[in-house]
Amino acid sequence: MSLNITQKLIKDHLVSGEMKPGTEIGLKIDQTLTQDATGTLVMLELEAMELDQAKTEASAQYVDHNLIQVDNKNPDDHLFLHSATRRFGLYHSRPGNGVSHPVHMQRLAKPGKTLLGSDSHTCANGCMGMLAMGAGGIDVALAIAGEPFYVKMPEVWGIKLTGELPDWVSAKDMILELLRRHDVKGGVGRVIEYYGPGLKHLSAMDRHVIANMGAELGATGTVFPSDKEIKRYLKEQDREDDWIELLADKNATYDINDELNLAEIEPLIAKPSSPGNVVPVTEVAGTPIYQSYIGSSANPGFRDFAIAAEIVKDSHVADGVSFDINPTSKQMLTDLVMESHVASLLQAGGRLHQAGCNGCIGMGQAPASGRNSLRTTPRNFPGRSGTKEDSVYLCSPETAAVSALTGVITDPRTVDGNFPKVKDPKNPTVDVNLLDKPLPYEEAKKVQLHKGPNIASIPKMDEMSDQIEIPILLKMGDNISTDEILAGGARVLPFRSNLPEISKFTFEIIDETYYKRGKETVEKGGHAVVGGFNYGQGSSREHAALAPRYLGLRVALVKDFARIHWQNLVNFGVLPLTFVNEEDYDLLEQGDILEASGLRSKVVAGNEFTLSVKGKNQLIKVRHALSERQIEIMLKGGIINWVKDRKVKP
Amino acid sequence: MSLNITQKLIKDHLVSGEMKPGTEIGLKIDQTLTQDATGTLVMLELEAMELDQAKTEASAQYVDHNLIQVDNKNPDDHLFLHSATRRFGLYHSRPGNGVSHPVHMQRLAKPGKTLLGSDSHTCANGCMGMLAMGAGGIDVALAIAGEPFYVKMPEVWGIKLTGELPDWVSAKDMILELLRRHDVKGGVGRVIEYYGPGLKHLSAMDRHVIANMGAELGATGTVFPSDKEIKRYLKEQDREDDWIELLADKNATYDINDELNLAEIEPLIAKPSSPGNVVPVTEVAGTPIYQSYIGSSANPGFRDFAIAAEIVKDSHVADGVSFDINPTSKQMLTDLVMESHVASLLQAGGRLHQAGCNGCIGMGQAPASGRNSLRTTPRNFPGRSGTKEDSVYLCSPETAAVSALTGVITDPRTVDGNFPKVKDPKNPTVDVNLLDKPLPYEEAKKVQLHKGPNIASIPKMDEMSDQIEIPILLKMGDNISTDEILAGGARVLPFRSNLPEISKFTFEIIDETYYKRGKETVEKGGHAVVGGFNYGQGSSREHAALAPRYLGLRVALVKDFARIHWQNLVNFGVLPLTFVNEEDYDLLEQGDILEASGLRSKVVAGNEFTLSVKGKNQLIKVRHALSERQIEIMLKGGIINWVKDRKVKP
Repeated sequence: MSLNITQKLIKDHLVSGEMKPGTEIGLKIDQTLTQDATGTLVMLELEAMELDQAKTEASAQYVDHNLIQVDNKNPDDHLFLHSATRRFGLYHSRPGNGVSHPVHMQRLAKPGKTLLGSDSHTCANGCMGMLAMGAGGIDVALAIAGEPFYVKMPEVWGIKLTGELPDWVSAKDMILELLRRHDVKGGVGRVIEYYGPGLKHLSAMDRHVIANMGAELGATGTVFPSDKEIKRYLKEQDREDDWIELLADKNATYDINDELNLAEIEPLIAKPSSPGNVVPVTEVAGTPIYQSYIGSSANPGFRDFAIAAEIVKDSHVADGVSFDINPTSKQMLTDLVMESHVASLLQAGGRLHQAGCNGCIGMGQAPASGRNSLRTTPRNFPGRSGTKEDSVYLCSPETAAVSALTGVITDPRTVDGNFPKVKDPKNPTVDVNLLDKPLPYEEAKKVQLHKGPNIASIPKMDEMSDQIEIPILLKMGDNISTDEILAGGARVLPFRSNLPEISKFTFEIIDETYYKRGKETVEKGGHAVVGGFNYGQGSSREHAALAPRYLGLRVALVKDFARIHWQNLVNFGVLPLTFVNEEDYDLLEQGDILEASGLRSKVVAGNEFTLSVKGKNQLIKVRHALSERQIEIMLKGGIINWVKDRKVKP
Repeated sequence: MSLNITQKLIKDHLVSGEMKPGTEIGLKIDQTLTQDATGTLVMLELEAMELDQAKTEASAQYVDHNLIQVDNKNPDDHLFLHSATRRFGLYHSRPGNGVSHPVHMQRLAKPGKTLLGSDSHTCANGCMGMLAMGAGGIDVALAIAGEPFYVKMPEVWGIKLTGELPDWVSAKDMILELLRRHDVKGGVGRVIEYYGPGLKHLSAMDRHVIANMGAELGATGTVFPSDKEIKRYLKEQDREDDWIELLADKNATYDINDELNLAEIEPLIAKPSSPGNVVPVTEVAGTPIYQSYIGSSANPGFRDFAIAAEIVKDSHVADGVSFDINPTSKQMLTDLVMESHVASLLQAGGRLHQAGCNGCIGMGQAPASGRNSLRTTPRNFPGRSGTKEDSVYLCSPETAAVSALTGVITDPRTVDGNFPKVKDPKNPTVDVNLLDKPLPYEEAKKVQLHKGPNIASIPKMDEMSDQIEIPILLKMGDNISTDEILAGGARVLPFRSNLPEISKFTFEIIDETYYKRGKETVEKGGHAVVGGFNYGQGSSREHAALAPRYLGLRVALVKDFARIHWQNLVNFGVLPLTFVNEEDYDLLEQGDILEASGLRSKVVAGNEFTLSVKGKNQLIKVRHALSERQIEIMLKGGIINWVKDRKVKP
């Protein structure tokens, strides 16, 4: 049977399930990627799992998000991550070495492999003929521990590329065109696979741009072939041996068939405040800008900066425009320096920042109130820049550079002069020091984790009790969000690596006494909470399950759950139950004691059973939706215990 | 009579007083410098003074401190400063263009001139044959408005330099040697003037290093001659016409005579946590470091970075060392790029940051807990790095670079190989865009100040009442600090440009009800506070006088005042009184009403008068220490009103 590339990658890594779109499959993971914002918890999870050594072919920890060091917290996190990479056998990228995705592409990405990363733009490395996917932290921790990744078998959306991009139009405009057509949910449940004659005009880095923003279409992944261009790229990186050819079979078919003529694309721009809000640049031309921002994982390539440099060379940015240059890796910055592009950018008035994610994730470079910011970044969600009610536009480096000179949004095709042709560096730098290699095992096993005062291990968690007699500490209504369970934001997030501290904020918005009351139940068998419909909606943050669990939460009984929070509760050993009869919700009150005996066998025996309410002569019919694997996890008290146990008896 | 350079500069600018050390003199100010942390209040003061146009020869506003833009506040401040420079006829240096002192040196500094700046390292430009001094914000606002600067006539500390610095020893070691000998108060009340044959081996930028850290000796200023080296430097900056020769007269004498043989200096280091805690590097060699930090106004020159680059070239920094490179101006960074030094620094593992003050003033690059940071910055006061209980060492670029490679503090003389000779750039960059020029007056007067939501004008202030009947809102003990009056720190300082908001924190530590109670007195003639000895000790921040004044404070009656806070109270129209009989302090209680009639004539008539306590039949004898000029200021309700009035009838 003829296969497309996505099918080949999946087939090669399938450990469970059938390749039928929509059904769950388990995939072997070859490589992982973590960044510092999500990575500290992943490393604490590895510690709690008592992992001895990473089981993947290559796992890398990047420090690119929290580079602003105004006190000890971020640098302490960096040291902790460094020590964890030494202990567990991971690659380590130092703060300032660059953004995870382009650095991974330069040093580790390999055609034919799977990559799972705790960053939503992990999909960028799909440009290298990989199946690269973003996931939650615990999923990546499991992958590092050698567990498969479970995901719904995607539909494959084949897009045939024809033609060649016109002058002043680049890869960013192409992915914006897809967002214009399909908006931010157009790729949900799909892997986008590109093929066709247009490909030969797109460099590996152009493909990175396109694969990166597949995340904005909601796609599970984006796959490009591993062709001669990928061979050329790997050769440039001194890694020609890592190349294999990976193309779709001749008669391969796709679940969805689509076509895009590159020659017909014009300069596009996503208006505030959604990457799907795309119009031609001409439609907003003349809008004044405060900022022109070059960089991020959505335009990380040498050419993205070099074209901007060529455009602004011997000119100067307009009065009042902040022209922010954010290199994406130290290696690439070195090339830009050597080729005189950095000099051009500086002389034109550019502000050259450290290599990293920076303003793209709201770490610096926030725009002034009420001013327009023009960025080559992938996202312009409201407030993501750091400024409330911000006004961020997304565009290509060409549009950003031309607009920096004029001070207003400008279609780059309207400038005088020829489209500058950017040459590749004569002697491209290969900076092998971008990644510190894993230590040999004999050395690694002697390494102690380095924990600053704000980093605390995840405590051991009990198995599920067979006998429960636990009070309902909170009775809540419908649509309780994870923000209400555990808020995000600058007050709470600095404690992301410190469960005892972050747990103090749990349910704080709903009931300030919860923390104290919860903590008192820990030694007495824990407690329950009751909720209405859509419990746990919103952000996917795992702390919203982990923190209440730490405070003794053992049962969440609600009308129904938001999907991701339900998954997180299972992972951290909180039994998620729904009412069989929704009206039973009305019978329960805060303070009631829920009882069950033989709970473990009840959960195993079937999906429905009953809980009784102590002293009330009431029986509450409840239901769980756990698979066999999830029941095992639940009985063990969560996935950390489950993995720890598998190591002993696999 | 033969004069030294300091005496010549003072004589040329003297508008009042006698050149007798220790007595007050008034000096005409030719140039001013403000940075953004202090500048927003200065600009609001200019607005409140209703200034039409700067009266100085050149005044420049730099944006170098608050470059971390995590929300709208800093960028809004930047826009406000930009608009104020346009309105008042100032030069403007954009965020990211560099640190005020080296940029001022490159573009504006002129031999023979006076420079007053609202930054304690303003003294750095003494390297250019200027009298350059740091001062409070209101002093600089007054200077911009054409008022003289009042200061005690300094003693002149003549230091004859002989010999030449050995290899591996540089200007930073020389100023550290003076700190080793004289500690952080050794220069108080003095201007340090250098002369002698050793000078010819010190470049203009070397002299900048030495003049900069005169601030750490507590000196009023540091003066170097304007000789051929300064001519060379100005020529390199395309400003040869700005040069005049300025040397000491042949038989010039000094109040203090000193000598230093440069050849005898060895690599030195200031240990935590004072710049005066200096020992030879050999004494702490082998101490492990977390960070090696190059940059700041204390080592801002091309050669300071180039020597570091030459030292680390073709090597890589030790595992775990953060090698932070902080360029000090965009112009200098361009030269470092052109001469391949940036490439060397990057390839050795350097983290290249935006040009600015950055970590030197705790804005980023904080070290991890319990780790040692090695820096070329001027100060290592406890916690200044951003990390509590930090451990910061100060040293030369040579020592910092060598130690980055070894991972431990290392005497640079112990490395293999020759001392690298740094060549000046072949074609030094002159970036005239570093400073936006003042607008022509006709355009300037049309400019509106741009105020973001967190910037508020200083409200009009009343003249001093002749009749007072005001309650004592607080009775406090001894040693009340300005931190207790109005705290600094990250919670309060973001409101530095917003008097209504920042005033909410006034006396909060002492009495949370003060803000509300104070505000209620504003329309009713105000209120008083009573204190003990050393009232207003600590930080010099003007907000500690301005904020209570805004809340109605009209009289501060205490046992005695800390000097700077007393001056600030006078400037903002709060009458500072002391008890003639200290035991009267015990008679007064919170809530008592102080009364006086004919207060204005009483203050004018003499230094002592009486206040009565309403309903208590008590008379309290009080004293003021105001000069004639200060009485005028007090009657007007503060210096802003006083200046405004002088414009009308000078």
